[in-house]
Amino acid sequence: MNKKIRVAIVGYGNIGKYTLEAINQAEDFELVGIVRRYPNEKQPQELSGISVVDRLEALEDVEVALLAVPTRSVESYAKEALSRGIATVDTFDIHGDIVSLRNALSQVACQNNTTAIIAAGWDPGTDSIVRTMMEAIVPKGITYTDFGPGMSMGHTVAVKAIDGVKKALSMTIPIGTSIHRRMVYVELQEGYSATDVIQRIKGDDYFKNDETHVLIVDDVDTLIDMGHGVHMTRKGVSGATHNQLLSFDMKINNPALTAQVMVCAARAALRMPSGAYTLPEIAPIDMLPGEREQWIKKLC
Amino acid sequence: MNKKIRVAIVGYGNIGKYTLEAINQAEDFELVGIVRRYPNEKQPQELSGISVVDRLEALEDVEVALLAVPTRSVESYAKEALSRGIATVDTFDIHGDIVSLRNALSQVACQNNTTAIIAAGWDPGTDSIVRTMMEAIVPKGITYTDFGPGMSMGHTVAVKAIDGVKKALSMTIPIGTSIHRRMVYVELQEGYSATDVIQRIKGDDYFKNDETHVLIVDDVDTLIDMGHGVHMTRKGVSGATHNQLLSFDMKINNPALTAQVMVCAARAALRMPSGAYTLPEIAPIDMLPGEREQWIKKLC
Repeated sequence: MNKKIRVAIVGYGNIGKYTLEAINQAEDFELVGIVRRYPNEKQPQELSGISVVDRLEALEDVEVALLAVPTRSVESYAKEALSRGIATVDTFDIHGDIVSLRNALSQVACQNNTTAIIAAGWDPGTDSIVRTMMEAIVPKGITYTDFGPGMSMGHTVAVKAIDGVKKALSMTIPIGTSIHRRMVYVELQEGYSATDVIQRIKGDDYFKNDETHVLIVDDVDTLIDMGHGVHMTRKGVSGATHNQLLSFDMKINNPALTAQVMVCAARAALRMPSGAYTLPEIAPIDMLPGEREQWIKKLC
Repeated sequence: MNKKIRVAIVGYGNIGKYTLEAINQAEDFELVGIVRRYPNEKQPQELSGISVVDRLEALEDVEVALLAVPTRSVESYAKEALSRGIATVDTFDIHGDIVSLRNALSQVACQNNTTAIIAAGWDPGTDSIVRTMMEAIVPKGITYTDFGPGMSMGHTVAVKAIDGVKKALSMTIPIGTSIHRRMVYVELQEGYSATDVIQRIKGDDYFKNDETHVLIVDDVDTLIDMGHGVHMTRKGVSGATHNQLLSFDMKINNPALTAQVMVCAARAALRMPSGAYTLPEIAPIDMLPGEREQWIKKLC
């Protein structure tokens, strides 16, 4: 066995917990520690024996930091790590802002001779790899990405912010051709009118362009399940030949898959030249541990 | 538009014809010519106005050669092109021999400061990319690759070589978990016994381990269709989380897809450092034309 990859986890919410599990299962990694805001509070049992600190620089010789932080905090955490020469992996998921994040982090990464792998979840992330491959081998045609059924983190947060909502869950339901229905489950705050709250949700920017159904329920917590899925299709033309049909499907535990993708991307981070990269810019084999030949033998 | 990629096609059988179509549709390529064994014979109409020669060196400034030649001839054609500093793409398809082809071509490619992209069809090829990604993000579990229904070139050639067979078609039928049924359609040579021929086919190395059905027919030609397919699944574990379900499907025109993959691989060939590479060793985005940013915007 070669020298292990010295990794830190930054943030310990839902994704952070699954990232710890994925690292514990990956024999080529060695966890240096976890960065949390309040390291002196009582830590959950699974962190006993693990260094929990409040700043990355309190951990020694970290090679790569897995940023399990909210998307809007990614850039600042990444820049801080990169400026110390530590490679980063993030799951930044605002599709329209990926190019500008890449430019911002590329500069810092290059200046510090390190790498950032960005948007390294499953969408954006591994789905992007599949879309890229589909676009290449069927260059004319349409790709549809249908998500779910599964909980949308972004939409759930948006509903929770609405006046009168105590707890909420927004489920994404695929109805084909990249169109989605929103099924929103809401616990009302006392004294609020269901009709008013429903109206506010349906008028929110997150929901106003989608078919949205709001259901008032007694207990949102009993509905929550981390399963998710995607169905991607492309029908098009290779060369001059029409009706080429491709599809990719997943039914997965969402945070478990996200965490596993981050761990794979961390391997690639240490193999790439300085810079910032999305997953389609990485040779897929670099996401696997060890030497290439064994994998070519098995997978080609 | 940047300078176009100067490409040659070596071999003009079934795959070669589709490769020409794919190049004609790809605006970033410029066809320098086609290498055929008998360039002085009457050429098919679609080759009028195209240089048809008997040796690659008769074509000027070729950057990359697409080797549309039988698998067993790949190594010698590739070495010849590489030794002249011309990058190559092949669709070598003997899975167990890919590593040794890679080693052999890597040496010649590095000596001549060029690249070889090997096994660049759909299986091995783009399916290998998908298997690699699946293995990375679901590191424990089993991947099954189920081919078909579609014509197996290798098995069809094997049947044709059997005594008493005039014409033949071997279809690959997926029956799940990487197990395949062989449906063999045969036109008998005059004077041969069906029973004997069927027995010889079923005893042949290509068939003896598979469920094989042989049907004697009047006209094999009316049965031939270039459609093919694949269904790949992986069920396994990400981190410590079980029951992660992935699948990839294609229903495609086989030579059209193969040819398109070669064209995509040719782009990557000119972007990689010297050496020989299988498709999982290439950043998928390098299979697309033009600059990266536009694709990141569209596909991530």
